[in-house]
Amino acid sequence: MISLTIIGNNSAVPAFGRNPTAQILQCEGKAFLIDCGEGTQWQLSRHGIKKSKISHIFISHLHGDHYFGLPGLLTSLGLLNHNKDIHLFGPPLLESLLELQFKASSTTLPYTLHFHALEEDGPIANTEHFIASCFKVKHGIDCWGFRFDQKKKARSVIAERAHAYGIPFSFFPQLQDGMDYKHPKGTIIPNEEVTSPASAPVSYAYSADTVFEPSLAEKFKGVDLLYHETTYLKNQEEKAKQRMHSTSEQAASIAKLANVKKLIIGHFSSKYEDLAPFLEEARAVFTNTDLATEGTTFRLNQD
Amino acid sequence: MISLTIIGNNSAVPAFGRNPTAQILQCEGKAFLIDCGEGTQWQLSRHGIKKSKISHIFISHLHGDHYFGLPGLLTSLGLLNHNKDIHLFGPPLLESLLELQFKASSTTLPYTLHFHALEEDGPIANTEHFIASCFKVKHGIDCWGFRFDQKKKARSVIAERAHAYGIPFSFFPQLQDGMDYKHPKGTIIPNEEVTSPASAPVSYAYSADTVFEPSLAEKFKGVDLLYHETTYLKNQEEKAKQRMHSTSEQAASIAKLANVKKLIIGHFSSKYEDLAPFLEEARAVFTNTDLATEGTTFRLNQD
Repeated sequence: MISLTIIGNNSAVPAFGRNPTAQILQCEGKAFLIDCGEGTQWQLSRHGIKKSKISHIFISHLHGDHYFGLPGLLTSLGLLNHNKDIHLFGPPLLESLLELQFKASSTTLPYTLHFHALEEDGPIANTEHFIASCFKVKHGIDCWGFRFDQKKKARSVIAERAHAYGIPFSFFPQLQDGMDYKHPKGTIIPNEEVTSPASAPVSYAYSADTVFEPSLAEKFKGVDLLYHETTYLKNQEEKAKQRMHSTSEQAASIAKLANVKKLIIGHFSSKYEDLAPFLEEARAVFTNTDLATEGTTFRLNQD
Repeated sequence: MISLTIIGNNSAVPAFGRNPTAQILQCEGKAFLIDCGEGTQWQLSRHGIKKSKISHIFISHLHGDHYFGLPGLLTSLGLLNHNKDIHLFGPPLLESLLELQFKASSTTLPYTLHFHALEEDGPIANTEHFIASCFKVKHGIDCWGFRFDQKKKARSVIAERAHAYGIPFSFFPQLQDGMDYKHPKGTIIPNEEVTSPASAPVSYAYSADTVFEPSLAEKFKGVDLLYHETTYLKNQEEKAKQRMHSTSEQAASIAKLANVKKLIIGHFSSKYEDLAPFLEEARAVFTNTDLATEGTTFRLNQD
């Protein structure tokens, strides 16, 4: 199963029990952490997610509510003797910041932290299950959105039928890749005869913090799940523009333009206690919308 | 009333609901923050302490569990349009770290943050109510303890008596300072005749993180309240030494040597769920000991 769990959904100053941005994308025991606001290590425990599962971390930008929890998380993993590599993606300055913090505390991590600076739109990681890409969004400072496309999965070999056609085990990997089998006598066994198709790969996109920018729809095109920020309600459109954020209606318009399957909205301003109006305004434009409430897990597939 | 509230009492990795180090020393509506582990801004709210009261912040050293909450706290105060000056005391590198973080986020604080680098033992701040001093302790990295001595308070003028002796109002400030009054005719009115003494000034000392170091007792001499770290229990004395921390028994020995009135102990290792043995071991050496449990307020005087 591939799923996304919301760890923090608030903007800047924590309010009404809501925490700054963090999300966890999970697939088969591995986890990607997307942004890491202050307190993320507590929130992960609270929501029953083991820090040690995290193999990749993606930091969208260097406003504190998106990364002030990172030094603490990396340090705690070190103190817990974590020994698996971690790949960290973020704006170039993040590396200097962490280096200075580790230097100040004489910290030597017991695991390898591979830093990858975000510099241009395009693929940034090719992992077991996903191709991860980044793209620039429009915010007050250098800021990146992310897209995670599940790799095409192998077809399932129907072993009985393959045996009946005399196909050797050694050819099964090629069958999984979709190849036909050519019998030594010349007969061709079409792949579809001896395999069943894998479920369609899924995709997730994360807008990070951005002003309304219709051209971004291209980056989110057709994803199964889109998270788009909605710091303000519709009646604060002018303020949203000034502060380089979006409204609920704008997030929903992008989802519609990008023809995504489902939209979730978050990064709510600390001035709002009641989030129902966000959902109402977004659903008026794009029906399949949900609030990115903390602790909620959205399943991207049923495998 | 002068009081100390414990905000976080755990070492390094958060555990059993305990948070990294932070304490608040309060006097007449003003607050000093002593260390600021990750999540301090949440813990302050949880314990009903307004961030906006904080006028001085003292950071003992640059291990993350003592300052990773600082950038977030300072940023949140900015976003909340805090406009009163804040004085920050800490190791020199802290200034560069904060500057780099503010630069990365294009943050301009709406209040003035005065940074004071800790460089040698001695007084560092002369505030309305306290003289604050710092002193080097012995830890893995550059680390400072703090001592807060309440200023001698003014004596109270017994107005009726002062009038009866014909002492003019204009001399009252000198009476409060303890001076005798010399009558124009030459008679001397002893100060004690027309004033009552102020309550004795109180003092608080904070050990920060330190290995057992008996010579530090000199720095804590006679304080009303001493906080001393006790990362480990007595049977882990060797480990405590290796990691430059103290045991409960060692903390109590220092309290005894320094002849303090009361001792509180904290900075418990994440390996301990039950804190009762810490108290037991410390009380065996120094009876007037309490655990620095989170949310507890210790009163330093009854004014």
